[in-house]
Amino acid sequence: MKGTAVTVMAMVFGNKGETSGTGVCFSRDPSTGENVFMGEYLMNAQGEDVVAGIRTPQKLSQLEQTNKAIYDELCQIRERLEKHYHDMQDMEFTVEEGKLFMLQCRNGKRTGAAAVKMAVDMVGEGLITKEQALLRVEPEQLNQLLLPQLDKDAVKKATEIASGLNASPGAGCGQIVFTADEAEAWAKEGKKVLLVRKETSPDDIAGMAVAQGILTSTGGRTSHAAVVARGMGTPCVCGCADVTFKDANTIVVKGKEYKKGDYLTIDGATGRVFEGQVAVKPATISGDLETFLGWADEVRNASVRTTASGKTVKGFNVLANGDTPKNAEDAFRFGAMGIGLCRTEHMFFDEPKLTAFQKMIVSETTEARKENLAKILPYQQKDFYEIIKTMAGRPVTIRLLDPPLNEFIQAETDAAATALASKLGMDKAALVAKVAALDEHNPMLGHRGCRLAITYPEIYEMQVEAIARATAQLDKEGAKHDVRIMIPNVVTYKEVEQIRGQAEAVIANVNKECGTNLKFQIGSMVEFPRTALSADKVASVADFFSFGSNDLTQTTLGFSRDDYGKFINSYLDQRVLEDDPFATLDPDGPGALMEIAEAKGRSVKADLHLGICGEHGGDPASIELCYKYGLNYVSCSPFRVPLARLAGAQAVIKANK
Amino acid sequence: MKGTAVTVMAMVFGNKGETSGTGVCFSRDPSTGENVFMGEYLMNAQGEDVVAGIRTPQKLSQLEQTNKAIYDELCQIRERLEKHYHDMQDMEFTVEEGKLFMLQCRNGKRTGAAAVKMAVDMVGEGLITKEQALLRVEPEQLNQLLLPQLDKDAVKKATEIASGLNASPGAGCGQIVFTADEAEAWAKEGKKVLLVRKETSPDDIAGMAVAQGILTSTGGRTSHAAVVARGMGTPCVCGCADVTFKDANTIVVKGKEYKKGDYLTIDGATGRVFEGQVAVKPATISGDLETFLGWADEVRNASVRTTASGKTVKGFNVLANGDTPKNAEDAFRFGAMGIGLCRTEHMFFDEPKLTAFQKMIVSETTEARKENLAKILPYQQKDFYEIIKTMAGRPVTIRLLDPPLNEFIQAETDAAATALASKLGMDKAALVAKVAALDEHNPMLGHRGCRLAITYPEIYEMQVEAIARATAQLDKEGAKHDVRIMIPNVVTYKEVEQIRGQAEAVIANVNKECGTNLKFQIGSMVEFPRTALSADKVASVADFFSFGSNDLTQTTLGFSRDDYGKFINSYLDQRVLEDDPFATLDPDGPGALMEIAEAKGRSVKADLHLGICGEHGGDPASIELCYKYGLNYVSCSPFRVPLARLAGAQAVIKANK
Repeated sequence: MKGTAVTVMAMVFGNKGETSGTGVCFSRDPSTGENVFMGEYLMNAQGEDVVAGIRTPQKLSQLEQTNKAIYDELCQIRERLEKHYHDMQDMEFTVEEGKLFMLQCRNGKRTGAAAVKMAVDMVGEGLITKEQALLRVEPEQLNQLLLPQLDKDAVKKATEIASGLNASPGAGCGQIVFTADEAEAWAKEGKKVLLVRKETSPDDIAGMAVAQGILTSTGGRTSHAAVVARGMGTPCVCGCADVTFKDANTIVVKGKEYKKGDYLTIDGATGRVFEGQVAVKPATISGDLETFLGWADEVRNASVRTTASGKTVKGFNVLANGDTPKNAEDAFRFGAMGIGLCRTEHMFFDEPKLTAFQKMIVSETTEARKENLAKILPYQQKDFYEIIKTMAGRPVTIRLLDPPLNEFIQAETDAAATALASKLGMDKAALVAKVAALDEHNPMLGHRGCRLAITYPEIYEMQVEAIARATAQLDKEGAKHDVRIMIPNVVTYKEVEQIRGQAEAVIANVNKECGTNLKFQIGSMVEFPRTALSADKVASVADFFSFGSNDLTQTTLGFSRDDYGKFINSYLDQRVLEDDPFATLDPDGPGALMEIAEAKGRSVKADLHLGICGEHGGDPASIELCYKYGLNYVSCSPFRVPLARLAGAQAVIKANK
Repeated sequence: MKGTAVTVMAMVFGNKGETSGTGVCFSRDPSTGENVFMGEYLMNAQGEDVVAGIRTPQKLSQLEQTNKAIYDELCQIRERLEKHYHDMQDMEFTVEEGKLFMLQCRNGKRTGAAAVKMAVDMVGEGLITKEQALLRVEPEQLNQLLLPQLDKDAVKKATEIASGLNASPGAGCGQIVFTADEAEAWAKEGKKVLLVRKETSPDDIAGMAVAQGILTSTGGRTSHAAVVARGMGTPCVCGCADVTFKDANTIVVKGKEYKKGDYLTIDGATGRVFEGQVAVKPATISGDLETFLGWADEVRNASVRTTASGKTVKGFNVLANGDTPKNAEDAFRFGAMGIGLCRTEHMFFDEPKLTAFQKMIVSETTEARKENLAKILPYQQKDFYEIIKTMAGRPVTIRLLDPPLNEFIQAETDAAATALASKLGMDKAALVAKVAALDEHNPMLGHRGCRLAITYPEIYEMQVEAIARATAQLDKEGAKHDVRIMIPNVVTYKEVEQIRGQAEAVIANVNKECGTNLKFQIGSMVEFPRTALSADKVASVADFFSFGSNDLTQTTLGFSRDDYGKFINSYLDQRVLEDDPFATLDPDGPGALMEIAEAKGRSVKADLHLGICGEHGGDPASIELCYKYGLNYVSCSPFRVPLARLAGAQAVIKANK
């Protein structure tokens, strides 16, 4: 976006009386992108006077009335400069005793909306090509078009009380509540709530979903709150250490108390927290956006590149991560070509599924586990049915259960243990022992994902049955479907081989019973280094790979997402690391493993489908690497799909240069 | 060790009266290895009768008296068979009415001591070569020669009350105590104690060091208790779930109570736990062992191989892991060529170092941290001085601080917090907050190792100063020294570069002050996949690599050593994994990364020195892989050094075949 400054060497003076003056103008409107000439002008003044804001300048249109000759000359220059630079110009000029001098010009800064409109307009005007247009907009600028924003004037008057990490963009304003249950209850009464928590957990999902924004006192940009909020498109400020919890109804921020029900406003784009209600502007989506992103899709769809391993890969798709029909609708609306990651664990947190699942967890026999899983099956089937139906034939990639079982059953206090034991109809001491047995020292490296299916095959068998039955139901209704099953936490091909065999047996049963002939692609997550290092073996039994780049980053660097906040700032400040590896894919770490996995995987299956479904799938620099590595698609949260569509196209254009 | 069975097809009968009979004999003594003919014989009996133990057989020497012709014939056959098979034979024979029939023979099973003696004797007799001799002894058999054993006859009469995991071999018998403090106190009174714990932590080190054995109710073969016990050569049974803790003075095993002070005996080789005192036989080291291991050293020292990356590597050394002068002495005694891993964290657990270190941890300023570190410096210097002196010029590789700080400062109960706050002279609430802030969700992936030196450079600076001062002191005394500094938890070359710069500045100061000219090799641990994947960059700033294969296994597979007990048995039972990856190096996981690190590292430094200092350094199958990967040495606990010397030689011989 940097332009070349054109500077005249002579001194000119705009303060030589009423036929002199100075001004700043834009060849198009930098806020909206409209093709109108606009600017400001001060009679009898030097350039600094305009910038300093001491005197109120006149609009450029007034110059047209007071000095038409100068104005017309300026209009001609505007046109010449735009044609020369093929971009919107930010110009400074001085009039000395009736004579116009251009002081300098540069490509002008612009909002996201303006960037899109100008890019589209300039293609129409023949000033630039579609490829140039696509490079004119920073992907992150698109977020501005898709999320509610704080009103800038209102911010100036607002009282900022604290700031934390800008975890999920957008402005959120509401009455503060301190538990997910309160959030749900208040929202039901029609109140707008802002959920304030120390940190969030999967139990809080329902409360988070109804909140206008989420504010936490601990946790980083990849904490549960941040990841879930971004997935939901909910504004979120994390790790705001100035927020302390006094009692169930009060928080204290820098000595000042705020009671439940008081209003706060957060700006997820900057991490700032304001007292009271700050005006929020609704999202405005430029009419040109669809045109613009359509070009991005064309470029990505037509792309062809050769990977380091020598394979030719065509096309570069954008899918979305989504766990609910609402997510699927958002994904559709934002142009995702399918669901690249449908997590199933959230589906267990609503009652009566939760109780049945908890009973399954505490069961001592396979029979008892199966009995409780059977109760969950119809609910899972319904969840799957709705998502698959919404996506109307676009791929839906369903990940089988991923987190450790202890996330579903906790009894941190004595009272919680009593209540849970009573709910599950079991002896409290036995429950406490079970909870303790499920506890993990390093849960990220624990008994989770497909490891659960090696110890308890019946869990995945139930899930696969629910998927197959939901698909069979749609199939009979004549609906389109493209469902793929994804196994998480794989470390050896033998896990895939064994789980695949069990899944295919379940699918065969459903086919027999329903008279269908369903087949499902069954793929492997690549989340641990070993999976990438032995990708040739894994590819021999998997239909596709999806890189879980969050976990892959954790294990490749030995950085826990929950703990790295203690040292990452020192690393970045001292430039021991250039980027936060959880924000931007690290080419010397997980990136190197992705290249190895591509080469080894495609050495046995030349057309092996590769994708990414970690947080990096929505980061422009990471998307560029994914293109380079030969991935067929990236999958990101629905609200980042437009960004990914553009970033992907930019990766293609840059690679073709 | 399997021989070919020689079977006669005709039926013969040893139960045809007093000129008939049947017997089993060994061409040498399978218990001691002595070159004496021995066996058992039953008149008028069939083979089953000898084996069944219904009648008490006569010694073979009695056959010499009752039927010299048959005995002489048998002696000739013994000699012929040994010459033919070049190994000790286990033979069955029958005499039918005065005629000798050989029923079958095979290579005989033998104890470790016998295996060594026979191998050495047979080389002397010209029956086998030294290489053949080295392949005749299973490395694990050497353990039998080095550790106290339960007396077999005593075991038969003993009452087995439970069994757990055979975590560290050897027999341990003592009065049970339930805390490390009790162990220390009782041991001071001259009592032999067996430490029984739910699990152990670094706080328990002193108590573990004085115990005859360690028994834990939770934890696996790589738990803290197991690892430390093996390092100390202390017998240990882990994960014995039948042991429950009733109160401070009582454990319950399968319903029966045992009070503090009662005797129990454990067999760390089998995992069995016995009531009372079972007789323990002291270790007997065969006089031939040194000869035998000397041959192993010759073979390893003379070895030359080419790695997959095309580099030629000469020699294959065995070093020991050791943190104390006592460890260093053991290492020396068992033939280690140096210390490959000297952990420094244990050095902080004795007072007054612990209090100073805790004060350092809770300090809010760099000055306060330095002040407390300065108090520790002379103690660390003394520790280093003694170890370096003991190794008398052999390499001593010192690893800078590795674990997260929270391992040093814990306040799990309110009383503990009160006591600790008072000891550190700080506000209790502030202490509790500090402890909470240091808490980690996934400590294995947390703020530890050189990450501490990026946030608090003064910690490593103190340690490097202590190393340099200790070495300077020895240097001035004219003592030999070869000290190497090792940086743990490296993920990027920039960590090494930065820490190296700081260390070299400290060393230069010490040289200036002491008038010495010390130089230290400064190397990098390779414990995380990223380090291996970017080994070319790391090698450009590191003098050597040491693979921390425990952590590398954890991160490459995403298996927490503390948690994988929940699923590993399912994996092994279903053969989803062939071996426990923490016991045997996994060639598709950490092994593949070691190969990558070798190739990339030596691509920039052809003679880059490579070693391993994880638990795998003492495992024969892993040692074979380390040889294949081109490592210069393995480092293991002192008690496994003889095993590693042999296993390394076997790797050489097998590779040369």
